[in-house]
Parts: sequence; structure tokens; C-alpha cells
Amino acid sequence: MSFYDELKFNDDGLIPAIVQEQSTRRVLMMAWMNRASIEKTIETGKTHFWSRSRKKFWMKGETSGHLQTVKDIAFDCDGDTLLIQVEQIGAACHEGYKSCFFRSVDPSQTARVTEARLENPDEIYGKK
Amino acid sequence: MSFYDELKFNDDGLIPAIVQEQSTRRVLMMAWMNRASIEKTIETGKTHFWSRSRKKFWMKGETSGHLQTVKDIAFDCDGDTLLIQVEQIGAACHEGYKSCFFRSVDPSQTARVTEARLENPDEIYGKK
Repeated sequence: MSFYDELKFNDDGLIPAIVQEQSTRRVLMMAWMNRASIEKTIETGKTHFWSRSRKKFWMKGETSGHLQTVKDIAFDCDGDTLLIQVEQIGAACHEGYKSCFFRSVDPSQTARVTEARLENPDEIYGKK
Repeated sequence: MSFYDELKFNDDGLIPAIVQEQSTRRVLMMAWMNRASIEKTIETGKTHFWSRSRKKFWMKGETSGHLQTVKDIAFDCDGDTLLIQVEQIGAACHEGYKSCFFRSVDPSQTARVTEARLENPDEIYGKK
């Protein structure tokens, strides 16, 4: 049986994909895939997602060069979430941090930045 | 500013929460929270979620005893996903595996179980 038959896509045909850096086990980001973007990810070995806001495919790193090479694709017991192990080039976050999860909640319930910025977003994506 | 103001809940008032075991960095599960379940999680130090199918709160481990003690709550650049570090008692997965992500896609695009079952679900939840 193809693993696709064990996946459950939501009403929009999407499934959330958690991306983890295999070497450090740092969780880098979460984004959405549809069946075609999973197929493209497997075919090319680079992560491809579906942008819900822009309604289009995107390959992670297509602008920044911060590609993700896929090492493993796992899925959960309910078949409604993917966990993808990758080798990450540069910063995964468009704000220049290694991980998109660069803020934590501190005891006063405000946000605290927990890691150093690796890169200047203006230099990656151009000034807006 | 409260971190709640930086979060984006979906149209159903929910936000996905990735749960990671802090000591091993294994991603254990993904489930959904609403604002009240985040508040309960912070207040009690144990993860509480919102069940979309049962339309009720649940505390992870309320039946199985497999509680998750919260060590850190992070959120991503878009404010639409949480990443929670926990100390996990026993198996996180209701099927008796440490992680819900116990299957990976193999080269023939079928699913392969990648970890040993820790516990017998019938003994945790009772036979169905």
C-alpha cells in the first residue's frame, strides 16, 4: 500500500509538515503540503510546500538559497501530520534565524528571543 | 506585550502545537490548542489540548498517565505554530510508541515502522 493512502489531508487538501534538522534535531519550521508538493519533494529531494496565502507552490530556498535536502519523511499515527528530516543550508527562517521558533514565552508571559540571528534578512531577500 | 497578542489562531480559534521531548529532542506529536488550553497548560505545567473530533479539552496522559511536563513554549515567526518542550512519561503515542511519528516512507513509497513499541495499548487504555 502506498503511504499516500495512510495520509489524511484536510478539507483544503493540505497536511502540516514539521521540518527538523537531522543533525541537531532542532525543529526548524512548520509549513503546509498538498499531495503534489509531497510528490515534488520526493522527486527532487528538496522540500516543496503549498503557500496558503499566495496559493502557489514554493521550494524552500528558491529565493534565499537556503535549501533543505530531505533525509527522511515520517508521518504520525493519525496520518494527519508529516515530520521531515532535512539537511538545512543557512537559516531556515526568513527573519534570518536558524529556526523559525526563535522566541519562547518567559515567566512574565512575554516573548524572549532565544537564539542569535545568523543572517540579515535584507541581504537574503533584498530590502523591502 | 503578552505573547498571546503575537499568536495567530485559525478560523476555529486553534493553533497547532508541536511537542518535542527536551532531553532527546525527539518530536513526539502534534496536536491543537486554543487560547484556553494554552492558559491551562501554563497554569498547570502539563500539556492540555483541544480535540477537534471530540470538541473538548484533554490533558495529555489523563487516561494513560503519560503526562507531559512543560519545560518551554516557543512560537514561530508567523505566530501560527507552537513548539513545546516537555518531559514525557512513558509513550506519547496512543499506539504505545514513544513518538507518534513511528513510521517513515521507504524508497518504495510504503510505510516502514522505525521504532520499537514501548507499551501495549490494550494495557494502557483497556481493550476496545
